[in-house]
Amino acid sequence: MTTQRHFDEELESLKEKLLLMASLAELMIYQAIKSLIERSQSLIDEVNSQENKVNHLHIEIDEMCLRLLALRQPVAVDLRFITSAMKINSELERIGDQAVNISQCSAFLIKQPQVKPLIDIPRMAEIVQKMVKDSLDSFISRDINLARSVLNRDDEVDGLKDQIFRELLTFMMSDQSTIPRSLELILVSRHLERVADHATNIAEDAIYLVQGKDIRHHIEEERDN
Amino acid sequence: MTTQRHFDEELESLKEKLLLMASLAELMIYQAIKSLIERSQSLIDEVNSQENKVNHLHIEIDEMCLRLLALRQPVAVDLRFITSAMKINSELERIGDQAVNISQCSAFLIKQPQVKPLIDIPRMAEIVQKMVKDSLDSFISRDINLARSVLNRDDEVDGLKDQIFRELLTFMMSDQSTIPRSLELILVSRHLERVADHATNIAEDAIYLVQGKDIRHHIEEERDN
Repeated sequence: MTTQRHFDEELESLKEKLLLMASLAELMIYQAIKSLIERSQSLIDEVNSQENKVNHLHIEIDEMCLRLLALRQPVAVDLRFITSAMKINSELERIGDQAVNISQCSAFLIKQPQVKPLIDIPRMAEIVQKMVKDSLDSFISRDINLARSVLNRDDEVDGLKDQIFRELLTFMMSDQSTIPRSLELILVSRHLERVADHATNIAEDAIYLVQGKDIRHHIEEERDN
Repeated sequence: MTTQRHFDEELESLKEKLLLMASLAELMIYQAIKSLIERSQSLIDEVNSQENKVNHLHIEIDEMCLRLLALRQPVAVDLRFITSAMKINSELERIGDQAVNISQCSAFLIKQPQVKPLIDIPRMAEIVQKMVKDSLDSFISRDINLARSVLNRDDEVDGLKDQIFRELLTFMMSDQSTIPRSLELILVSRHLERVADHATNIAEDAIYLVQGKDIRHHIEEERDN
């Protein structure tokens, strides 16, 4: 087998591991929100058991990237792919952390009466899960349009977060016994917002990989001038 | 000049830029909290103008690391140093983001009467700023003890965050007119907590650099040893 072909196979294996990690992170968000909706302790336990898998993958992917950098000494797009993979690996691990944070809010909330039927939070969670999936897919398939669509959805998530905040504020103001539970629901929405931020970071890495220029902080406009 | 000596100089320059970025990020936290204490709009504006500098440094450091990886093809500890520098660069940029988030809370709060004199938040901010400084110093000077001391301070920060939460919950329950302001102060403490998380990540990278093994996800066992 040629060295190049071997290298390509290693890159393929790296991609597969990243996709696996992303699907685990996405599953954890799904389970954490579902545990809240169905008031299920066993789903909370599920989230925690997934976290161990994500943590192991995190270390495995990081070591794989370092090995590829050291042994293959890649340049240009391969170099950017591997260093971006290292960053994305950290983003995915933190998405897992956010799912754990949500499951901790859920553990508190399912022991108390419901403040209100949950509508906006499941909607926000659905958008956010899709952002995680699409951001990783855009990176793997080098699809700039998909990556940009992830960036565009960030505003929608912020809008939902503000809406949830305002609504729960009204609940708290009108019935102070709901304050602790309402606060916890506000925190759930903040954790989801952070997941969206991580997905946005991944999408930016995807665009950077393809364009070879940095769109973070809107530098692209500056460079075009 | 030998290639090795040139490479060493480039590494020195990378370290200086990281230290500059860390001091800017630390300054932003300081200014954001001070804007809250002194109810100063001009300090809020200061935070925003620092953010531009941090964002430019972020891109500059990232490109510097990529160039070093591509041209110098480092191995072993130099390779780990540069890939860690890339990750730390992202952590520092996000610390700057948190300072901006705090300054936004401040912009809301300084237009309203104070809920209570601020005691725990400035204390929490002081610890967190020191964590940022020490985490970066531990990385640059490869000081494992300093890095471990950063990890240990994370519990203190969590304790303060919980204390702030409980106290403001009491305010909200006894006087519902304080709810919006109290919520905003709770958010300030959450932003500070995230800064502490970023400093912890940097300290973990420092330990990894020196020990050449990954302590992430094994922190508890490591600390007991």
